[in-house]
Amino acid sequence: MNMTTTADDEDRVPVTVLGLGPMGAALASAFLENGYPTTVWNRTASKAVALVEKGAVSAASVADAVRASQLVIVSVLDYAAARAIIEPVAADLQGKMLVNVTTDSPDRAREMAGWASGHGVEYLDGSIMTPTPTIGRPEAVFLYSGPEAVYEKSRPVLASLGGTATYVGADPGRAAAFDFALLDVFWTGMAGVVHAFALARTEGITAAELLPFGRGIIDLLGEVTAEVANDADRDHYPGDESTLVSNVTGMAHIITAAQDRGVDVSVLRSAVGVANGAIAAGHGEDNFGRLVEVLARSAARQGQDRPRTAA
Amino acid sequence: MNMTTTADDEDRVPVTVLGLGPMGAALASAFLENGYPTTVWNRTASKAVALVEKGAVSAASVADAVRASQLVIVSVLDYAAARAIIEPVAADLQGKMLVNVTTDSPDRAREMAGWASGHGVEYLDGSIMTPTPTIGRPEAVFLYSGPEAVYEKSRPVLASLGGTATYVGADPGRAAAFDFALLDVFWTGMAGVVHAFALARTEGITAAELLPFGRGIIDLLGEVTAEVANDADRDHYPGDESTLVSNVTGMAHIITAAQDRGVDVSVLRSAVGVANGAIAAGHGEDNFGRLVEVLARSAARQGQDRPRTAA
Repeated sequence: MNMTTTADDEDRVPVTVLGLGPMGAALASAFLENGYPTTVWNRTASKAVALVEKGAVSAASVADAVRASQLVIVSVLDYAAARAIIEPVAADLQGKMLVNVTTDSPDRAREMAGWASGHGVEYLDGSIMTPTPTIGRPEAVFLYSGPEAVYEKSRPVLASLGGTATYVGADPGRAAAFDFALLDVFWTGMAGVVHAFALARTEGITAAELLPFGRGIIDLLGEVTAEVANDADRDHYPGDESTLVSNVTGMAHIITAAQDRGVDVSVLRSAVGVANGAIAAGHGEDNFGRLVEVLARSAARQGQDRPRTAA
Repeated sequence: MNMTTTADDEDRVPVTVLGLGPMGAALASAFLENGYPTTVWNRTASKAVALVEKGAVSAASVADAVRASQLVIVSVLDYAAARAIIEPVAADLQGKMLVNVTTDSPDRAREMAGWASGHGVEYLDGSIMTPTPTIGRPEAVFLYSGPEAVYEKSRPVLASLGGTATYVGADPGRAAAFDFALLDVFWTGMAGVVHAFALARTEGITAAELLPFGRGIIDLLGEVTAEVANDADRDHYPGDESTLVSNVTGMAHIITAAQDRGVDVSVLRSAVGVANGAIAAGHGEDNFGRLVEVLARSAARQGQDRPRTAA
């Protein structure tokens, strides 16, 4: 991870932020707090009021906002919203840097990069991996992908967003690909967390009682994830400590107990289904990490049959 | 969490360990290292060899092993295996303490406690929440449930297993209930981890590249779990930072991207199904924690219709 460096005073070039949802507003605030002349625009102009009080200029139109700065940041709901805002001002964006931190799929990021390239716009795609309150603070985590030269040029300005920024590659879809994989862990994990609290509740265990142990098991999950990563990159999944067969037995016990209490078990049952598929394919004595290879392998197989969804 | 205290030298009463799988062997080793006269038994006697070299006595029969100590620990595959070993020596166990650290369901723990009570055996049920290598070390985590007097009597001996031990209640099923809820978080989280590494692999991202950010997102999961716990115990799920509707939109994006790559999406799709059920029930503007209540509520509803599975 690269530590970001802050711009010198003389480098405080104007910045434009398009989209003032919670994240866009936090980004604009961070620029203002770091002394950047900041122009903001939002479809609902009232969202700019608090930022104007902090010194931002509220532009009357997207075109005005774009003309105000060499670096333009977009933070909206999804790439469809981003394109609806950006496409009509293509001429104004020509020769400028567009940094899109809107969350969407890797393919959409690549499409947008293609569009930008076709209009002479320097494009960088960003993923913000930490919640809004972290912006401008050391715990913020940013990923960027796109042409390295564009990243290097925008880096001093982006440094004012705080935390750590990592350049993950020239493929503009790469930051979004990291983002999706990480959100995948987060939401699947959250599904487990709410289910566990529900299961505990049916046994008269409060969430506060379970919490300290729950945090412990989540710490353990982080440690085991490091082992899975090591196995996955070597494509070697030794089952000497635990095997898919024993893992599935353990998971089946939880499913039975939850069912006995009438708690929905669809998520864990789907996980067992994936593991059973790998066992049926002859991997029962490998460890759980084998599922990385099995899941990615089925993807590679399907990829031969049909084209990737792209523009 | 109570810090365990170690027994004085004169308190080193004999201990028996039944079952010498990796966990049973680790428990026996910890007793030996702490100077306890330790008798061991395993169906396959060869597993006792390494422990005998460390000073253990290998008993020729379960009955001999039980007769050697006032405190008997059982660590086998499941409660069916535990009962098959224990029931024939009920007479030998009478008046002694039986500590069962075998993993199984809360209901099975209660059944076994009932059996023990019927045979004049003092019964404590334990769950070991950390992997085998932690036994005897500060990071080990143990939960115990059953009569508090039995826990207090066995506590000095159990302290030699290291780490922290917590007494979670008189209901003998309670340690297993904690265990199941925690394993639920772990295995659901693991399903997310392998899926994320697979999804990343289809984008040419290695596990090593994703890992540091993956650990960051798992840390974040731990922090959000604390917020979920707080909301769940108050049964108040404010959606001011994020709502089930927006969560499901984000999850659906990941599903689409994974499907485009031919990666199985059954786990995350099941999680979306649970969330959509809550949205359909009118909770779309609540946060994700609402699912604790929704999942437990459906359990309570089912509980009215049919009896709990029990002996």
